[in-house]
Amino acid sequence: MKKYQEMSREELVAEKEALEAEYQKIKEQGLALDMSRGKPAADQLDLSLPMMDVLNSKSNFKSENGMDLRNYGCLDGIPEAKRLVAGMIGCKPENVIIYGNSSLNVMYDQIARAMYDGICGNEPWCKQGKVKFLCPVPGYDRHFAITEHFGIEMIPIEMHADGPDMDAVESYVNNDPLVKGIWCVPKYSNPQGVVYSDEVVRRFAALKPAAKDFRIFWDNAYAVHHLYKDNQAQILEILSECEKAGNPDIVLEFCSTSKVTFPGSGIAALAASEANLADIRSQLTFQTIGYDKLNQMRHVAYFHDIDGLNAHMEKQAELIRPKFEMLNELLTKEIAPRGIGTWVNPLGGYFICFESLEGCAKEIVAKCKDAGVTMTGAGAPFPYGSDPKDNVIRIAPTFPSLENLAKAAEVFVVVVRLVSVNKLLEK
Amino acid sequence: MKKYQEMSREELVAEKEALEAEYQKIKEQGLALDMSRGKPAADQLDLSLPMMDVLNSKSNFKSENGMDLRNYGCLDGIPEAKRLVAGMIGCKPENVIIYGNSSLNVMYDQIARAMYDGICGNEPWCKQGKVKFLCPVPGYDRHFAITEHFGIEMIPIEMHADGPDMDAVESYVNNDPLVKGIWCVPKYSNPQGVVYSDEVVRRFAALKPAAKDFRIFWDNAYAVHHLYKDNQAQILEILSECEKAGNPDIVLEFCSTSKVTFPGSGIAALAASEANLADIRSQLTFQTIGYDKLNQMRHVAYFHDIDGLNAHMEKQAELIRPKFEMLNELLTKEIAPRGIGTWVNPLGGYFICFESLEGCAKEIVAKCKDAGVTMTGAGAPFPYGSDPKDNVIRIAPTFPSLENLAKAAEVFVVVVRLVSVNKLLEK
Repeated sequence: MKKYQEMSREELVAEKEALEAEYQKIKEQGLALDMSRGKPAADQLDLSLPMMDVLNSKSNFKSENGMDLRNYGCLDGIPEAKRLVAGMIGCKPENVIIYGNSSLNVMYDQIARAMYDGICGNEPWCKQGKVKFLCPVPGYDRHFAITEHFGIEMIPIEMHADGPDMDAVESYVNNDPLVKGIWCVPKYSNPQGVVYSDEVVRRFAALKPAAKDFRIFWDNAYAVHHLYKDNQAQILEILSECEKAGNPDIVLEFCSTSKVTFPGSGIAALAASEANLADIRSQLTFQTIGYDKLNQMRHVAYFHDIDGLNAHMEKQAELIRPKFEMLNELLTKEIAPRGIGTWVNPLGGYFICFESLEGCAKEIVAKCKDAGVTMTGAGAPFPYGSDPKDNVIRIAPTFPSLENLAKAAEVFVVVVRLVSVNKLLEK
Repeated sequence: MKKYQEMSREELVAEKEALEAEYQKIKEQGLALDMSRGKPAADQLDLSLPMMDVLNSKSNFKSENGMDLRNYGCLDGIPEAKRLVAGMIGCKPENVIIYGNSSLNVMYDQIARAMYDGICGNEPWCKQGKVKFLCPVPGYDRHFAITEHFGIEMIPIEMHADGPDMDAVESYVNNDPLVKGIWCVPKYSNPQGVVYSDEVVRRFAALKPAAKDFRIFWDNAYAVHHLYKDNQAQILEILSECEKAGNPDIVLEFCSTSKVTFPGSGIAALAASEANLADIRSQLTFQTIGYDKLNQMRHVAYFHDIDGLNAHMEKQAELIRPKFEMLNELLTKEIAPRGIGTWVNPLGGYFICFESLEGCAKEIVAKCKDAGVTMTGAGAPFPYGSDPKDNVIRIAPTFPSLENLAKAAEVFVVVVRLVSVNKLLEK
């Protein structure tokens, strides 16, 4: 198979004509497929159904701390749930606050609190001028949506194979007191599947921020979302690394069971130093009387501990892995040899990040749409929706059935080839 | 029995000595009782236990709108839950947004949004100067805590037997553009049990606010919390009254099932005009992907509809009513004839609001504490914790057993008598 870049103009025109014909045939099928949504498939959710039975009218509704789980109280989570979450992210239970059903909400609240109340006694961000966030790109669109919503200036930071460009991060954080935070998905990052190396984590922990109220927003969303049993990424535990580096308060870590049990009906959590937790609790007491302790206990009663949770995630991996492998094989066969796209085959998480030829992503997504295949919007993984090279496409393989995913992937391949040919013919 | 005010000094001194002796004996018992907490008792919670069985691993997890309740999605609540909540407060389902587990959190978020994003395109409150809230007193301490937290100036408004002093409300709202809101608990108010009359509700609906972004914060917390089957308060439905008065956007209504099923594991809701809902949804989309739909369906599957919910509340009333009646009888027998306290026997809600002689509330609460009986802090029902007459004490009868409540109430009576005697002897 020949690289498109090595084809003659005549070869490219012939390829274009063949692909146009194929694309027309696809369009006539009237497909309605979707590779845009980072959602579990129904069979993954089925695996959590037994959790609906672990609490029932005959259960003991007492926490080990004596509290009646059915009544008011318990601002920051029951101890059993703190232990479970601590197991997920490798920190100490006493550093955990358990929230409601959504870690996105926890992050939103944390930014809101920093903007208007200030962090740990510091002046609210909103009174300090135009504050800034570092945004490793490509990244998670809902992170960027929150910072944009609050009027925070976003500065893109290039992602490397082992994490964000730490030279750039250090340069911004250690010199500019208006840089107040950075969004990180340290394990199986959304969308690239990057795993932060030990060196990167240590450099994060050792930052010397110009701003006292700078915080790393460490969204450990895919902490337990491995695809392979024997090849699982591990990252250094950030809280203890920060403590060792003399920076105990520099990080806020987030996680949830949204993609472990039921999205929307999971439990979310924040982990941080005692100083940060005390600050957060002092505000939280105005906001709520406490979160859903029954759902916290439901998760604990189902998983018991991190081993139970990991065993559950292995079953999910068995359902997801074939989807990732199929896509990887198809792209390896149809795209790589033609030189028209790259990606890293991830070991976990929910996405494959495809990089097309420059200037092609929007057109690929549009042409997929016209052929009945919905992709995540081009640009979505960038602050302000702006992909400077217009070449990043987030593929979400989990939600469709393997069969539908295969159909969608074949359309995607044809479209990538067609748009690439067109791009090369423009020159 | 003689009124204390009619006793001679000698009689008062004799009474004081007898009461001091009685108080000492009580203190020696080492009691640990609590009439401070507006929480359901365990037997009330037991009534909701069957709700823990209505969803299980064999259930159908589809909403009537086709959505998989176990997955992401549904920003503003499933239609089934909207209908149930609409039944509770008498509005239309399309005016309801279902949230998470706490209406306090909904109110907090609403104030935060108004402060920093602004309401319906208006300038954020925080940029308009020192904004103000009207606070009918006595009222709910957590309402006042939220407004104080956000630096909103609180103006006390006197409560009458049929609701807030509407002359004062109209005068403030219709003339001062910095008056942005008022806290209302329109039915069985916390703590007095006041039910707003139709005239009061209509005057609220007909307000002509000087501020376009003024909102009535209508916390219908006790909408279904009647004590008697045959003597239930009804209030006019505020949304439709506001619409009729040409003020559809003036009100935000809040409610929850916290004291219907399980506090902390209930569902909370907001009801408002379509313009308000659109404004709220546009912000909510940054904050969350959606709330716990399984718990929404759990409530619907248990109650089916408002009739089922009302039947459930009747059972709760049977458990609570004897506590209220016992207290009312004791106060009627021991306090009223001595002229040292007044209260209104409520038809619903969670509290009895006791008014002692002026200048006695703090001392009564302190002396109860010393005798092992915890009361809500004196002053708590007032903005900034400041009760100008120092004579309001909130009694919460639901949480203790009837037996413990009776013991606590006897201590309370002795303490009220003792503190009243002391007060009269000061003169």
